[in-house]
Amino acid sequence: MEIPEQDAAHMARAVELAGHGHGTTTPNPVVGCVVLDAAGQVVGEGFHAYAGGPHAEVVALAQAGERARGGTAYVTLEPCDHTGRTGPCSRALLDAGVARVVIAVSDPNPKAAGGAARLRDHGVAVTSGVLAGAAERVNEEWLTYARLRRSHVTWKFAATLDGRSAAEDGTSQWITSPEARADVHRLRAASDAIVAGIGTVLADDPHLTARPNAAQGHSGVPSIDSVSRGETVRVVVDPEGRTPQSARVLDDHAPTLVAVAEDVETELKADLLRLPRHAGGLDLHALLRELAAREIVSVFLEGGPTLAGAFIGQGLVDRVVAYLAPAVLGSGPAALGAAGVRTIGEIHRLTFDEISPIGPDVRLIARPAIQPGRET
Amino acid sequence: MEIPEQDAAHMARAVELAGHGHGTTTPNPVVGCVVLDAAGQVVGEGFHAYAGGPHAEVVALAQAGERARGGTAYVTLEPCDHTGRTGPCSRALLDAGVARVVIAVSDPNPKAAGGAARLRDHGVAVTSGVLAGAAERVNEEWLTYARLRRSHVTWKFAATLDGRSAAEDGTSQWITSPEARADVHRLRAASDAIVAGIGTVLADDPHLTARPNAAQGHSGVPSIDSVSRGETVRVVVDPEGRTPQSARVLDDHAPTLVAVAEDVETELKADLLRLPRHAGGLDLHALLRELAAREIVSVFLEGGPTLAGAFIGQGLVDRVVAYLAPAVLGSGPAALGAAGVRTIGEIHRLTFDEISPIGPDVRLIARPAIQPGRET
Repeated sequence: MEIPEQDAAHMARAVELAGHGHGTTTPNPVVGCVVLDAAGQVVGEGFHAYAGGPHAEVVALAQAGERARGGTAYVTLEPCDHTGRTGPCSRALLDAGVARVVIAVSDPNPKAAGGAARLRDHGVAVTSGVLAGAAERVNEEWLTYARLRRSHVTWKFAATLDGRSAAEDGTSQWITSPEARADVHRLRAASDAIVAGIGTVLADDPHLTARPNAAQGHSGVPSIDSVSRGETVRVVVDPEGRTPQSARVLDDHAPTLVAVAEDVETELKADLLRLPRHAGGLDLHALLRELAAREIVSVFLEGGPTLAGAFIGQGLVDRVVAYLAPAVLGSGPAALGAAGVRTIGEIHRLTFDEISPIGPDVRLIARPAIQPGRET
Repeated sequence: MEIPEQDAAHMARAVELAGHGHGTTTPNPVVGCVVLDAAGQVVGEGFHAYAGGPHAEVVALAQAGERARGGTAYVTLEPCDHTGRTGPCSRALLDAGVARVVIAVSDPNPKAAGGAARLRDHGVAVTSGVLAGAAERVNEEWLTYARLRRSHVTWKFAATLDGRSAAEDGTSQWITSPEARADVHRLRAASDAIVAGIGTVLADDPHLTARPNAAQGHSGVPSIDSVSRGETVRVVVDPEGRTPQSARVLDDHAPTLVAVAEDVETELKADLLRLPRHAGGLDLHALLRELAAREIVSVFLEGGPTLAGAFIGQGLVDRVVAYLAPAVLGSGPAALGAAGVRTIGEIHRLTFDEISPIGPDVRLIARPAIQPGRET
């Protein structure tokens, strides 16, 4: 199918709009919409900004008003056909009298799908698959969550050019620059959960909050059930339940889940997530399914070469964000531990999405060469 | 001193011209020259292309002819004042009647220096230090060689994003792409010598030639004394003289030097370079001084995390070229071995000069944050 140039250009704008919702729409997707009038002029733009707020189509149609009649709507994700916290968007498009709807990606959510069919049934011309790659990309976390029914995982690491995250004696402050660390805080804040291993908790006693000194004066431990927009859940992967009761990660700055083996006896006072064991650790598929069940769409994996190796080894890293400092160590702990590779044919191949300088460092963003659903 | 805009622009062009000589001027510097007439129009351009060939000034002045009289010459390196294989450039500039000479970098070579003084003595206006940074950069190898009286070292490594150069079982073909490997061959060919450790020779039996299948049909071992333009010398750092007589690196495709400890008894038939021992290996300062004495300006260090660690640890790496593949291994040999760092304060800091995609990989070029002459 050849895509008319204008269709691609309008969808590109819709994708750009969708991106504005990053980090605030959980557990909803990011969606962008552009509405043209019958003459082909842009008369409305919108994006989904937060869960419970109006959908992108509704925002764009409200802006267009009567001018949408006989026009075209570009939507990055198939318009929903169900009534959740808001009415179905397929209905809103029909009510507005739009003559044509152009869709980038179909909705994998069985509850919400069916919008395209309903529009067609009512005589609207529907084109699908326009700029699907870019629209997949902008909605990567949510699509992984919706299709695989597990949280999307971004593994972040900071290392020297030779892949080390600390010197021989364990010291590591600071390998990367303030600019790189600020970027990490930004990514953390846009994630629904931050995950670290027990090794990191015991060695560094990190807060694992999106901001290092967030929530001063905050009191009372927030319940895991009341996760609201912008509140990042902390998750400790701790098979044997060794997290000290005094660990900073258990303070009251954010809700925390401690994932332990289902057979472990522990007196730890914390929200425990009991999971099956797997290869000397925990079943990380099960962890991500449990997190998804709690509407945690995106997970930011930090800290712990062992845990990172386990995630990589189980095929559960969807995106790698590497901050490499212009420095070499030659010895000291590696950023990544054993990941199930014995021989070169088993190497975990990725592709670079972005290569960019960040302060004096370089940030490399990569994804598995085959994905999603490679964890078979 | 404020630099007139035109001076900077003309010198930038001279620096660009100098770069055309990269890899072919050994043991001479790369030099570029731009000549303006009295009215400020460009009337001549030149660069030094190969040792024994005309100097940049002579080429540019020949092109300018009589139009150089009363004009200005921009030279990236102070014009020489001695008669080597060609006459002194200071004399050529005086003969041409140039009224002003603008110089980027002073000549550190006592044999050749004095050009600026001679020009001033004869009434020519001389400005120095214009665009010195860029001119230093383009002539980096030679300036290191001339100032420190040792060869300039580029350490190249290819690794995964987590800094590993092979899988656990030692297999490594191919971590980086054909594009990256072609780039390595280009850099090798532009170097005067390729250096590898005995570990690499024993493990991989590499040819260490600039091109993998170079010099088919070549016969007779070239003498190390007859190193001519374009012939890359192979150097094996082999303290105990363990290089097998049948090693490919000893074949007849290029001259080879085997650096052994001065106290070692060996029956190896090869050009031996006997050096003092240092910290379990060889004194690498001494190696680079010996290579410089053989007019080897630039060395390309490949192969061997141990040797690379020793070079880094002794402060003898002037440039790092890292090819990182979009892949992770999590185990297996690291690209860099012990480099004398115990705690984070001793980290070897670099700065990135270039960050560029190359095929599916990324190439990072870095240099020590403090240099040259950091090896004190």
